[in-house]
Amino acid sequence: MVYINENYLKLQGSYLFAEIARRVNKFKNENPDANIIRLGIGDVTRPLTSSVIDGLHKAVDEMSKTEHFKGYGPEQGYDFLRQKILDSDFKSRGIELEIDEIFISDGSKCDTGNMQEIFGINNTIAVTDPVYPVYVDTNVMAGRTGNIDESGRFSGMVYLPCNMENNFIPELPSEKVDLIYLCYPNNPTGMTLTKDQLKVWVDYAKENNAIILYDAAYEAFIQEDNVPRSIYEIEGSKDVAIEFRSFSKTAGFTGTRCAYTIVPKNLIAYTKTGEAHSLNKMWNRRQTTKFNGVSYIIQKGAEAVYTLEGQKQVKELVNYYMNNAKIIRQGLSDIGIEVFGGINAPYIWMKTPKNCDSWQFFDKLLTEINVVGTPGVGFGPSGEGYFRVTAFGSKDMTEEAVERFKTKLNI
Amino acid sequence: MVYINENYLKLQGSYLFAEIARRVNKFKNENPDANIIRLGIGDVTRPLTSSVIDGLHKAVDEMSKTEHFKGYGPEQGYDFLRQKILDSDFKSRGIELEIDEIFISDGSKCDTGNMQEIFGINNTIAVTDPVYPVYVDTNVMAGRTGNIDESGRFSGMVYLPCNMENNFIPELPSEKVDLIYLCYPNNPTGMTLTKDQLKVWVDYAKENNAIILYDAAYEAFIQEDNVPRSIYEIEGSKDVAIEFRSFSKTAGFTGTRCAYTIVPKNLIAYTKTGEAHSLNKMWNRRQTTKFNGVSYIIQKGAEAVYTLEGQKQVKELVNYYMNNAKIIRQGLSDIGIEVFGGINAPYIWMKTPKNCDSWQFFDKLLTEINVVGTPGVGFGPSGEGYFRVTAFGSKDMTEEAVERFKTKLNI
Repeated sequence: MVYINENYLKLQGSYLFAEIARRVNKFKNENPDANIIRLGIGDVTRPLTSSVIDGLHKAVDEMSKTEHFKGYGPEQGYDFLRQKILDSDFKSRGIELEIDEIFISDGSKCDTGNMQEIFGINNTIAVTDPVYPVYVDTNVMAGRTGNIDESGRFSGMVYLPCNMENNFIPELPSEKVDLIYLCYPNNPTGMTLTKDQLKVWVDYAKENNAIILYDAAYEAFIQEDNVPRSIYEIEGSKDVAIEFRSFSKTAGFTGTRCAYTIVPKNLIAYTKTGEAHSLNKMWNRRQTTKFNGVSYIIQKGAEAVYTLEGQKQVKELVNYYMNNAKIIRQGLSDIGIEVFGGINAPYIWMKTPKNCDSWQFFDKLLTEINVVGTPGVGFGPSGEGYFRVTAFGSKDMTEEAVERFKTKLNI
Repeated sequence: MVYINENYLKLQGSYLFAEIARRVNKFKNENPDANIIRLGIGDVTRPLTSSVIDGLHKAVDEMSKTEHFKGYGPEQGYDFLRQKILDSDFKSRGIELEIDEIFISDGSKCDTGNMQEIFGINNTIAVTDPVYPVYVDTNVMAGRTGNIDESGRFSGMVYLPCNMENNFIPELPSEKVDLIYLCYPNNPTGMTLTKDQLKVWVDYAKENNAIILYDAAYEAFIQEDNVPRSIYEIEGSKDVAIEFRSFSKTAGFTGTRCAYTIVPKNLIAYTKTGEAHSLNKMWNRRQTTKFNGVSYIIQKGAEAVYTLEGQKQVKELVNYYMNNAKIIRQGLSDIGIEVFGGINAPYIWMKTPKNCDSWQFFDKLLTEINVVGTPGVGFGPSGEGYFRVTAFGSKDMTEEAVERFKTKLNI
């Protein structure tokens, strides 16, 4: 008799964005003429840059000719792209990496989800709260937690609250943890850590033989100088941190699919008897066994991000969205809503007015001003009473949404 | 202290194709002028068809315009592609499927590897022997086996020998098994099952509440009428079988990356207490949590395979490779080598002459005639004394390789 992986039964039934879609669809059916503005899901809306488009077309042409055709590529990604990443994203910032510490993939969601497979199920996991749900759910599926309780917390997992009271800076856990997921600039709060604040975590990991899984998918949006773009700007981090990066938000690749992950060769983890093993080698084994590399065409498109013109164009993309962020921050502040994030990230995290709960505020925005955002509680219990909007819309829609907040919302 | 997944330590150190590369590189260094012909790895060499190239270019152009730009797509794949698959690959053969039974992915390697995640570790796995190593290794990594023994078998896994003596038709296991990997047309042997022979397995699965993981990546190469192209041609199979399909070999997508997997809604597996759960729902949850869908551009390229012209062109591709297979079969038979496969598959499996072992024969071919193939034992203990060559080279190279077999090989 074939058995299921029973850990799946611990997952919550309705995924956050499915519930949002359900409520929006219901409202649309009842109000077919409503002009709904969606600032919910963190998905880009601007087209690919002309450099990327050219790179993609050229690669497609190559695939049409026997002499340039590419079959199976390296599972770790092509060196032409890994070298560009190494030079442009790291060497230029004083970070020395080796080319085989870089693994190209089809997304940071996949990588952050798959990375836990190389670790034993006997590790204690820490996540910030609120948090990107994939970190939690993939560990639940693997069996590293017990059941979820009424507060929305899985037993066996350590939650690190991030809220107004601690200025969204997580405190070190009181119990010992082994794997720590950190995402900065943060999804969903849009907040960041300074180098000193991040160093506290690197030091903790070193002292406790822990590993930090550092999601830097939003690093391109950083505007302030004292905010690290990579955890490897922190001394000692190459001994304790894996970093996830993506072209999704940086270059508008959410529908094109390319990302990369840094697994330094210094990183080690242990058997129960204390034998040390290289995580770089283990991840390489995982990827060569369960993954076949990213499409050659897509990797050539990603490579085009690193030309001079390509770099200029993605900066324009980022500036476009960050201008939206500014419009939202300013507009909401003007009407007395407390806003966070949006300075080094495309997310604005707001305190719901009058202690409205997250879903009440969602319904209020939807019905009163036809704007869709994301209830903070969907990202974890500490998100209750908060609400996320994204800067990924068009400028016109963003301005219109802010105008509605100002003129039509009853707060 | 952070712990590794110790199941990884059970894996064999040197992967088959890495060892082949090592030996070939050593030979090349010692014989820099040797003209080596590679018929080892099962990778295509012909360019993408013009239909696919057009489809890709058009999709790239769409991504350059705000009004056509695509961000995150459905994790399960776009309906435009799922519908074409449903109509062209199944409905046309009398197989009724629903669109949400089809999941688009970036490769069958990924899907066959990832699929085991939704099953409990307390299932007994059966594999044919020889076998595609991914089925075995991903289950080892998940902890469903013990250690490997001297014969190359992992304890706790059931091996079903396929050899000349049983005409490469696996016998039903004597012990009860829960998950059965079958690949037809077979990699590496190139052999097939008839409908009646496959029905034996469907019946076994039904009687034993087992699930068949059916890898049909090579179905496009089938030439004979009594060979099923899909397991769903067998009555009752929608209750017991998951099928994996790929554009890799069919349409030359090994470097382009697109595949799909059928998980019928009838499929159920159980908790330890006997509660039934839908595998379709579980796989959907796995994919939405750990995967972000295939690039829009690539899915549009795959869609182009289903135009009239596209279908004609992929048939030409298949015919090109199958002509190579014929050349190899005929040539080797002519010099008295016993050959199998190559009639409904792009792989030719040969008995090594004079009871030479697989690696001895590899070295002999490399040094005497500078042809690279794959030692059968690399696919499992029952592959010892066999050797695989592929039909994926160019016609010229294939003819040249066969000529060398005939005129230069000392057997």
